[in-house]
Amino acid sequence: MLQVNHERVAKLLQGLASFTDSEEGVTRLAYSPLDKKAQSWLLEQVQDLHLQIRTDAVGNVFLRRDGKQQLLPPVATGSHLDTVIHGGAYDGMCGVVGALEALYMLQDEELGRSIEVIIFRAEESSRFGFATMGSKLLTGSAVPEQLNKGAKKGDISFIEALREWGCNPDAYRDAVIAPGSYKCFAELHIEQGKVLEQTQHQLGIVHNIAAPTRFKIHIKGVADHSGATPMGMRRDALVSAAKLILAVNEAAETEKANGSVGTVGVVDVEPGSINVVPGAVTLWVDVRGVDKASIARVLQSIREQAENVAVCDGVGVQIEMLTADSPVALDKALAAQSEAICTEKGFSFLHMNSGAGHDAMHMTKICPTTMLFVPCRAGISHNPAEYASTENICRGIEVLAEVLRREAN
Amino acid sequence: MLQVNHERVAKLLQGLASFTDSEEGVTRLAYSPLDKKAQSWLLEQVQDLHLQIRTDAVGNVFLRRDGKQQLLPPVATGSHLDTVIHGGAYDGMCGVVGALEALYMLQDEELGRSIEVIIFRAEESSRFGFATMGSKLLTGSAVPEQLNKGAKKGDISFIEALREWGCNPDAYRDAVIAPGSYKCFAELHIEQGKVLEQTQHQLGIVHNIAAPTRFKIHIKGVADHSGATPMGMRRDALVSAAKLILAVNEAAETEKANGSVGTVGVVDVEPGSINVVPGAVTLWVDVRGVDKASIARVLQSIREQAENVAVCDGVGVQIEMLTADSPVALDKALAAQSEAICTEKGFSFLHMNSGAGHDAMHMTKICPTTMLFVPCRAGISHNPAEYASTENICRGIEVLAEVLRREAN
Repeated sequence: MLQVNHERVAKLLQGLASFTDSEEGVTRLAYSPLDKKAQSWLLEQVQDLHLQIRTDAVGNVFLRRDGKQQLLPPVATGSHLDTVIHGGAYDGMCGVVGALEALYMLQDEELGRSIEVIIFRAEESSRFGFATMGSKLLTGSAVPEQLNKGAKKGDISFIEALREWGCNPDAYRDAVIAPGSYKCFAELHIEQGKVLEQTQHQLGIVHNIAAPTRFKIHIKGVADHSGATPMGMRRDALVSAAKLILAVNEAAETEKANGSVGTVGVVDVEPGSINVVPGAVTLWVDVRGVDKASIARVLQSIREQAENVAVCDGVGVQIEMLTADSPVALDKALAAQSEAICTEKGFSFLHMNSGAGHDAMHMTKICPTTMLFVPCRAGISHNPAEYASTENICRGIEVLAEVLRREAN
Repeated sequence: MLQVNHERVAKLLQGLASFTDSEEGVTRLAYSPLDKKAQSWLLEQVQDLHLQIRTDAVGNVFLRRDGKQQLLPPVATGSHLDTVIHGGAYDGMCGVVGALEALYMLQDEELGRSIEVIIFRAEESSRFGFATMGSKLLTGSAVPEQLNKGAKKGDISFIEALREWGCNPDAYRDAVIAPGSYKCFAELHIEQGKVLEQTQHQLGIVHNIAAPTRFKIHIKGVADHSGATPMGMRRDALVSAAKLILAVNEAAETEKANGSVGTVGVVDVEPGSINVVPGAVTLWVDVRGVDKASIARVLQSIREQAENVAVCDGVGVQIEMLTADSPVALDKALAAQSEAICTEKGFSFLHMNSGAGHDAMHMTKICPTTMLFVPCRAGISHNPAEYASTENICRGIEVLAEVLRREAN
């Protein structure tokens, strides 16, 4: 196997980071023209790998290196290129660039099975309110119609975005891959937490993924003049919403020991004028954990508080579920193989869980799946300050390349 | 004096309501192309009044009917045409249409003084974060530069809007009117509260106007991944903001008996993604009252809670003052004159205060000023359901016309 090329890895990551809609951090929303430009640029850079390129019916891209035994299911790896608003340059990109660099490292190897690098579309929910959309559609875990109701005010819907991207949303079934189509799937990713850094490990081997439960809370009060409406005569939707923002936080704080978290990330206020008592508010909520019972308790507590606020404040409160995924267990044999590889290479490693959701979580439905985590500075992610060192990333790529080599033989 | 024409009043109010950017209610933001179109339409409708039309350096419009003694300061009346987002068809328009109808009623009268109808620009703060901008500039109470920092994300600044409207912001001093330039100013307006309806009075005679104190609260936390950031490691700006939304509400509730109110009408969340812990939040706050000491206690309480939250949550909290107007007393002699007119006409009336701010509040600086309130249904205003009956409005116009007649003689 050839040596990992630090310079090429750094150059590709830097190049991708330049495709951004914001000066601060990287903003490259899923299915945006910039998402397409970044992908085209990347594919140009790796033309010398001579990969076969295929795009499926929902925009996922497959880069294939043929093996000798083309009838056997290929080995798959990959990640995503889209980012949150004001995100970083490593979340997702690290796994796509890492997969391509692994193929460079394997250029001198004759392998039995083919290898496919998958660029999943829309892993982040920043644009359409749903996460891991490409891998959900690929594994038959959702249909476009279901993912169409999270669009933000002023943006086009997901189905319109699919058409704009050049896809035919009606042909979404063509994108679904049957179980057994791949021998296995491996995803390299930054940790997006502080555990590896604080415990001084060079690599994380992931065993469980905490999947998000997402919902909107709609609060309906009465819009009124902010000067002429006495305090006792108001039904201010934002005051009720504030109580529910605190209720989400408290419900998750109570389950802190079990690793659950809860976040309100978006607040829509209607009409949103300084001189009008808010008449309606929508909160977008994200709850996660690896312990199903703990997640259920968080959700139950939020539901109870929503009912309390509705009764006490005389406002309408309605919860609209968006997604409710279960925590996912990854493949134990592949984890053991990564452990063996780390030991051989002298890399320190930690067995751990993922607090963030990943495309790998859906790939478990069609093949044995594994994930490798690279430490990131201060655990900061989804933020312009997101950073992972090229050294740490390249250690991850070395292990990934060896996993692909062993699985493809 | 001629009879008030109910049909013309209803037709002008309905016509103005058709100039809207929203299907629900009326949305006609200050200095927008729609604001201009509505004004042009109205001026066409009243061409038969043969008024002299003048626009000042900041966009306020003056419609003048000459009196016999042109060297004497004219009598002024008027209101505004701009609305909040999803507002009603009466707030402001009632006073402009009412002033024009009063001129129709006075067509058979020979009057000593001239009468000017003023259409003030940007009474509502919905677009630029500041209220009564036209009357502030007209009375020298502000300069454009001061009013330029409240622009919303994605919109142009106030100074840019002035240029777009055809004004020269640098010539703003030309718009300032010296004290004594008018004999008096009278504004007809809907109450925007429930007092007249609940006490069954046909007209309100206003004695004090509760002016708004407006400020932004900036909360600075740390944006982070919503899945991989444990609860104990967060500095969630929105959780701190929720505490301050409740603090504003509580501070005003405590001063309810003294008539003070407090409202958070706008919440800006950065970055505003469901999968990112909010890193920064800005709240737009409006506090009002007629009792200066009570307002001061509300502001002090909010300031103390802001400091508490900053210390307890480890976030940055900064208060940025926008405006801090004082409650304003209107002219007692003019109020007594309106009382006499109501008594003569057999209209029931109530002496009262205004919870909402009005252009009249700034006109007190240059001449004796009075306001007349028309009841509005359920006190609802700044809302599509805002409604005042033509009968009630026309009673107000009858009194206004008589006030103008007496003052102009």
